[in-house]
Parts: sequence; C-alpha cells; structure tokens
Amino acid sequence: MDKPQRRSQESDEGLMPLALKRVGIDTYRENVAYLHRECDLYRAEGFQALAKVEVGANGRRILASLNVVDDEAIVGHDQLGLSEEAFASLGMPEGQPVCVSQAEPPGSIPALHRKINGERLTRRDFRAIVQDVAERRYSKIELTAFVVACDLGEMDREEVFYLSDAMARVGRQLDWHEHPVVDKHCIGGIPGNRTSMLVVPIVAAHGSLCPKTSSRAITSPSGTADTMEVLARVDLPFAELNELVRTHRGCLAWGGSSDLSPADDVLITVERPLSLDSPGQMVASILSKKVSAGSTHLLLDIPVGPQAKVRSMPEARRLRKLFEFVAGRMGLTLEVVITDGRQPIGRGIGPVLEARDVMHVLMQHPESPQDLRQKSLQLAGRMLEFDPDVRGGDGYGIARDILESGRALEKMRAIIRAQGETPFDPEAPPLAPLSFEVMAPQDGVVIAIDNRRLARVARLAGAPKAKGAGVDLLACIGDTVTAGQPLYRVYASYRNERNAAHQCCDCDNGFTLGEAAAIAPLNVEGR
Amino acid sequence: MDKPQRRSQESDEGLMPLALKRVGIDTYRENVAYLHRECDLYRAEGFQALAKVEVGANGRRILASLNVVDDEAIVGHDQLGLSEEAFASLGMPEGQPVCVSQAEPPGSIPALHRKINGERLTRRDFRAIVQDVAERRYSKIELTAFVVACDLGEMDREEVFYLSDAMARVGRQLDWHEHPVVDKHCIGGIPGNRTSMLVVPIVAAHGSLCPKTSSRAITSPSGTADTMEVLARVDLPFAELNELVRTHRGCLAWGGSSDLSPADDVLITVERPLSLDSPGQMVASILSKKVSAGSTHLLLDIPVGPQAKVRSMPEARRLRKLFEFVAGRMGLTLEVVITDGRQPIGRGIGPVLEARDVMHVLMQHPESPQDLRQKSLQLAGRMLEFDPDVRGGDGYGIARDILESGRALEKMRAIIRAQGETPFDPEAPPLAPLSFEVMAPQDGVVIAIDNRRLARVARLAGAPKAKGAGVDLLACIGDTVTAGQPLYRVYASYRNERNAAHQCCDCDNGFTLGEAAAIAPLNVEGR
Repeated sequence: MDKPQRRSQESDEGLMPLALKRVGIDTYRENVAYLHRECDLYRAEGFQALAKVEVGANGRRILASLNVVDDEAIVGHDQLGLSEEAFASLGMPEGQPVCVSQAEPPGSIPALHRKINGERLTRRDFRAIVQDVAERRYSKIELTAFVVACDLGEMDREEVFYLSDAMARVGRQLDWHEHPVVDKHCIGGIPGNRTSMLVVPIVAAHGSLCPKTSSRAITSPSGTADTMEVLARVDLPFAELNELVRTHRGCLAWGGSSDLSPADDVLITVERPLSLDSPGQMVASILSKKVSAGSTHLLLDIPVGPQAKVRSMPEARRLRKLFEFVAGRMGLTLEVVITDGRQPIGRGIGPVLEARDVMHVLMQHPESPQDLRQKSLQLAGRMLEFDPDVRGGDGYGIARDILESGRALEKMRAIIRAQGETPFDPEAPPLAPLSFEVMAPQDGVVIAIDNRRLARVARLAGAPKAKGAGVDLLACIGDTVTAGQPLYRVYASYRNERNAAHQCCDCDNGFTLGEAAAIAPLNVEGR
Repeated sequence: MDKPQRRSQESDEGLMPLALKRVGIDTYRENVAYLHRECDLYRAEGFQALAKVEVGANGRRILASLNVVDDEAIVGHDQLGLSEEAFASLGMPEGQPVCVSQAEPPGSIPALHRKINGERLTRRDFRAIVQDVAERRYSKIELTAFVVACDLGEMDREEVFYLSDAMARVGRQLDWHEHPVVDKHCIGGIPGNRTSMLVVPIVAAHGSLCPKTSSRAITSPSGTADTMEVLARVDLPFAELNELVRTHRGCLAWGGSSDLSPADDVLITVERPLSLDSPGQMVASILSKKVSAGSTHLLLDIPVGPQAKVRSMPEARRLRKLFEFVAGRMGLTLEVVITDGRQPIGRGIGPVLEARDVMHVLMQHPESPQDLRQKSLQLAGRMLEFDPDVRGGDGYGIARDILESGRALEKMRAIIRAQGETPFDPEAPPLAPLSFEVMAPQDGVVIAIDNRRLARVARLAGAPKAKGAGVDLLACIGDTVTAGQPLYRVYASYRNERNAAHQCCDCDNGFTLGEAAAIAPLNVEGR
C-alpha cells in the first residue's frame, strides 16, 4: 500500500533520470539492466545485484534483472544499460532519459506460495499468476517454483482447466467468424512424424478452415516449423499470417511470434531446461493456444510406444480423459486418436530429410514413406469429419481423393508461395556433407527401434540447427536384415558433430534385432 | 558415456583457446561468461545463450552461464570474458589462454527428476545432488526445482537426515579434538533477540569450547554478524577464526566464508528470493553447519508467537521432533527450548541499537533490557549444563555469576579485540540522523506487538545496510500507555527511507492496545 507513494516521493526528491544505453549483450529472454556501481541512483537506492528493477520512459515500462558494472566502457555513471532484447522491448533510442526503480513484487506471489505449500488454487489465483507470468514479472526462480509446484501431481483437473483458461485469456484471441475452425495437434515425442504438413493441405483443399500454427524443435531433432522452413519462410508477421489463412484456408507457419499464449512462451523457458512436461502443463499449453487461435474443433494425436512420451495404454487413457475434461470446460470439441508410437514415422529425421518425405508423399513418388502417408490420411479423414456435411466414415476416402488428385500438392504449393518460397528439389535435397551408415551387426528381424536414441543421434549430428543434418532410416520394425546391411544413414555438417553422432551409434545404435515373434503388439485404439 | 570422448575429440581438432578477459560486471553469485557472437568457437559449437559452459585453464575449471556479446568493447572475437566473481573464482590473469566447452549436465539430474516426480530419494541420491549443488553445477532453475520439490511435504524424516548428512559432508569439517563442543542456535524470526552475543561470552568465560559462527540478515533487519560488526571485524579468514576460538574458547564472527556448508550457501540463493523456509530445509541447513563445525552439543531455541516463524505449540513440537530425530542420526546431542516469541527481545532493532543493548547488559547498565538479559542467562545456563561437571539445575546460577562478576564483559572485550575492534560507545551510539516517534493513538495496555511489522519498519528505515538505522522500542507487552506517549522511535539515514518507514507506521504501527485481560497467554515450555 505504501510502496507506490514511496516511489512518487523519490521522484519528488529529484533523483536524476539516467541516459539509456544499448549494451551489446544477448541474454536470451531475460532482460538485464546494467548500472554503474558509482551511479548516484545505485548508491542512494542500494539496489542489490540481480534485483528486479522497473525501467520506464515516456509511459513505457519494462522489468529487468540488475547487473552492477565497474567498467565505464560498458555503462557510465549517468547511464542505464539494457541488454539487446530489453533494449528492443523498451523501444526507445539511446540517450533517452529513463527512470529506474525497484520493481514491486508481483501481486500473485502469495498465491504462488500457497501452491508451493500444496494448496488448491482458485480460478482467480491462476488468472493473477498467469497475468504476472505473461508480463514477465516473475523471475526465473519464481517461474521454476510455479512449474515444479504444479508438476508434483498437485493440480486437480479443475485447476488444470483454470490454468488453461487463464493462459488462453491472457494473450491475443482470434475470432474467425465461422464454424467449424479445425486444428490438429500431436503431443510429440516421435521422430519424423510430419503429418501436419500433409494434413493441413488436404483439409484446406477440402475447404475447412485450419489456422494451425507450428512449433520449432525444443528437444527434438526438428519441429514442423523447422521442417517447413526448408520449403518456405515460416516467421511471418501476425497480420500477414491472418490474411494468408483467410485466403488459403490454412498455413504452415511458426506460431511463436503470434502472442497467442504469451504465458506459455515464458513458462517454456524453465520447463525446457528441466525437461518438464507434466500432463497438466501439457494440457494447459496445448489447449490454451488452440482456444486463443479461435479453433472450435481439435484432433489430438497421442502416440504410444515404449520410447514415446506416453508408454502405456492406461497412461494414454488417463491423459485423454484430462484433455477431454479441460477441452469440454473450454467449449472446444475434441477428438483423441491414440496412435502407434513404437518407431519414427517417415524415413527422414531432421528438417531437410523430413521435407523430402513430405514432398514425396504429396507428389506420390514411388519411394514415398507409406507409414507417413497412411497416418496423415487417417488424421486428415478424422478432421474432415468435423465438417457437418461429411458423413461419419467418409473422411478417409475424401482425404485420399484429395491427395491422389494432386489437389493437396497444389494447395501445398500455394501455401509455400504465399509464405515465401525457398527453392527445394526433393530429388536433390541439400543434405549435410559428412555422412556414415550404421550397419546391422547380425542377421535378424527389426523388432524395436528406440525413438529417443535416434532423436539423440540426429541432434548430435546437428539437427535442427543444421537443416541438412539428421538420420535417414533404411529399415523399420518387421524388416528382415542381414549382417552388414545398412539400418540408417547419418548426415552431419561438422567433423565434431559427425564424430559425436558416430560415438553415440557405436555405443547403442537404437535398433533391436531378433525373432519376428518378439515384436511388441501394436496395442493402440481409435475412439 | 560418449561425451567425455567428444570433448577430447574437439581439442584434437585444435579449436584455438581464447584469451581471458575480466569483464567489470557483478552478477551476484552467478558466474557469467561473455563470448562474442563472431567468435569462431561460438560459431563452431553453436552454444546457446544462457547455456552452461565450462571454462578451464591450467587444470582449474569453473562453470558459467553464457551471454553472447555483439560489442567488441566488451569482448573481442578471440577473447572470453568472465564476470567479476567468475574471474576471481578461476583465479587466472587476463590474457591467459582458456578453453571453453559445453558443460556436462550434472550427474544427479536424473535423481532431481525423480524428486520432482514425488519419489523418495536414497542417501546416495542426496549425496550426488548436494555434491553437484556445492560445486555450482546446478543452474538457478535446477536449484529452484530441487528446493521446491523438497518443500512440498515430499521429504520424510529419513530423507531430511540424508540431506543434512550430505550437506555436512560436502564442505570443510572441523575436529576440535575435545568434548563437549557446544553451540546454540535460534531458528530466527524475532527482532532484536541478540542472545548469542551474551551467551557466547558467558559460556566461553566458563571455559566451554563454543566455536559458534553467526549469520548476516537475510530478510530480517539484522543478523548477529551485522550487529557484531558494529563492535568488531566479523569477516575473518578461516585460519584466523580457528586460532581465535582455540585461544578464547569462542568467537562472534560471520560464518559465511568458512565453507562449512557450501551447498547451503548455494541453496540459500534461491530459497531467499522465494522466502522458502520449510522444516526439512531448516533442519538440514542448521544441523549440517553445526556438525561440520565440529559441535557435539547444540541448544536450539524455537520461539513461538502469533508473528514468529512457529505460530503454535503443536507446530513447535513437530519441528522439535524432526530436529531431534535428525540430530540423533547425526550423532549430535540436542536440547530444544521453546521460548516466548510474542514480541521482540531487547529494545533495539537494527545493528547499532542491538549492539547498544548487548553492551548495556554486559556492563550491567541500569537501562539494560531485562528480557534480553533473562533469556540469555537461561540459554547460557542450559548450555553450561552440557559440561559434565555442572550439576543439572546449576547452570543458570553459574551464568548469572559470570555476568555479574564482569567476567562475561571481560571475555567479550577479549573477543572483540581479537577479531579487530571498532570503537563503540554504548552511551553515544552512532544512530542514523533522521528520526521520528510513533505515538499511542489512545490510552490502553499493550496487548500485542507484531514482530513482522516492526521488522519491516526497521528494514524500510535502512537496516541492516545502514548500521545506525532501525527501531528503538519504548514500550512492551503489558505496559500501560496513554494517548500521545511514544511507543517506539525510528532512525533512518535517508529521507526516502525515513518516509517509507513513516508511511508503513501510519498504515499500521504494529502495536495493539486494549485491556490487560486480552494479552495472549505465554504458552511456552522448556523440556
């Protein structure tokens, strides 16, 4: 109560504003302010290093962590430095007079403490926390505390709804003024699996509105946005994306800059380094974005397999029910398909290799991977059935017709041109120059493929940063191989990355060979 | 398994070492490394901003978070910059060739994930985590995840023992080669309450060995080390501290630099901004330090009161039992006293004011606060009874004799001289220049004093940074006051701090006046 008055007192006492300086340090999604130790303001206020300060000028304000500087080459006594992103975010020129004050602690901190103590939070609590998170009022420490406190099985499904709803409301919200607006999403964990790049053109060619946005890889060797970037620009300004969807009924662009779930963009900065992906956070992250994007119908793909994110049918069913409950509360029509996650989908793992697979399927190339084609047609068929004019059971046939008639390829080319085409020849994909093959050590049948191992090999080889790096599969579950026959080929750009991938394969190549009878049963279900 | 080999591969390929540069930025207990974006190493390795890197030279290594720099005035293409503390910690001259590589993830991360998932950890898990924490291998995010995961009632008492034991073992461990080695500790939360500064001289004058170290304020207006610093130097090198204790049988120095519980020093950096102080972490933090310091006997003070850390007797008993269990497993003899925490102990709150109170008690000044004197004699008496030659029940009388004979004052003066005396006259304490009084708004009896409110007023007034700032109490529970009579006086160094404290008092001065019958019963017990 007294703090705001205190601040006005300080300005009454006439502490001089400081001159803004851009400090050429990239601190990655963490605003840092630099203040000289001998600066009058620092001495008078006695800020602590790493304290959160509020920097304001001309009615604009940002929050930043304070670093104290002893070198005038970095900032002078009468300057306030801001790291690259902070400088851009304040959006003022160098030399601009700025005011700096101790930031108020975020108002939702008491609610955070109650969550840490294991209490159930109210809808209002979640709204307050999510608002503060989205406005970047939380420090990394507070963000982590929130994410971990919510992770420990401490959120009931009503709370997951509160969190999802708060996350959907805090960002931009789209309204397409038509119905249905369809979308699909896969919870991830399966290398390759670029079904969106086939489903979107098929569904959009049919005429359904599908304003899907895609993500970049977080811990995987490629995300849809990384793979699509091989073919077209994916980082489009919001207005352009919007226009594109209205014209073409769909797009394949990166959703990161569209501000649909700003709280999620912030939470991910701590979830990612901790590899945290609890059911509650997964549901809130996915559903909040879909609702903000204006979707009315969602098809959700949950792959199950020994090295997938979800490892058993009971776990998949539990997750499905949580998704269904929260989607229902949010007014979103949800269909869940539980799919085969025992091995990668498609041949390629890594942006260029996956783009080649997708284009092969669209072009009906004889070498196109049939598993990717089949799964995409099934998903697209289910999505087409969201259209009230499509009879239940007819979706798959319609999807196949759209693919086989070339209309899906035509739609894909239109989307690529609209986003900004990058020349790409699927017959001569720009693969990374250093490659090696991994051979079967003995005769046998492929009875298991370790998704995580192959993803790790592709990452070590440089994917997704090196677009042409990755793994090209030459055998899949059920294939009979002979000793010395290649199982897959690895592509890398740099010697050290090739060596790292090679050592990883030498240690465990991810393939299990044995008797055909030992193949685990498929064990999946639709709904 | 493959990673170490990878590193050696990289050096085989001859990436040039970089020249070390000291970057004058103080990043407060977080090592930061600065690398230019155009640096060959950065481009080849593709480090991510904020990634953890290992910087090595001449067999020394440190871990640091990476900031990417675009300004050659900060670091050049062939340089590696280190923030102040990181530079000091590597301990190499500028220009020294250094190698930089991606840091291996800490080996205990899988155990951390199991804790986040709510699993019970083994003794070996806790040792691995604590080792990594102490070596600063954990990021702030990982530290927070550990602290929060352990906070959610997710540690059973066996795990608290594992954690305490691991924390005691990871740092330096002292052995005084005699028995008993006595210590006292208060769990905190009561303003004033500088009993250690009386208990240590009394116990040391008796001849018991008391190698107590003290802490600085974290969220309070003063810690024992802050108050003692008014009288003497408290930041002593370890060897000197050791020698001093052997000579004088006790000391009153800051324990922060003695490396007795390095993991605790790191954990506190996230516990503090979150105001986390769970029973498990409190027990581990306190007992690990006492055991490392070579104590065999500990007297623990748990104050109880409506605004103390522990608010009820059942809560105090639960905490006592946890302390007793863990101390027992660690081989430490523990006595717990549960004391009156309904109001501050002593008159002054803030370093100079508290130092005045302590010296007044030692000098038997007529104005010395009797509550501080009584409590200190009781605690000292219990500690004296750790001496096998002192009969049960005789401790208090011996303590009083030591105080009244002037031997405690004499011992205090010896300790002050040995640590490095700062001139101080308790009759003319160097108080902060700006003061105001807070008056009783009506006639009545003081029935309650809000510890937290008074601590907040003292903090806003500038304590402990401004040594002379704080609150001087002029009334306590049970006193009859008349309207306009001063309840306390506030001292501040700066106008803005005085104003902030004033507004805080205007809003709620922390005193409750009423009928004498409304005073809450004392409700405490010894054992």
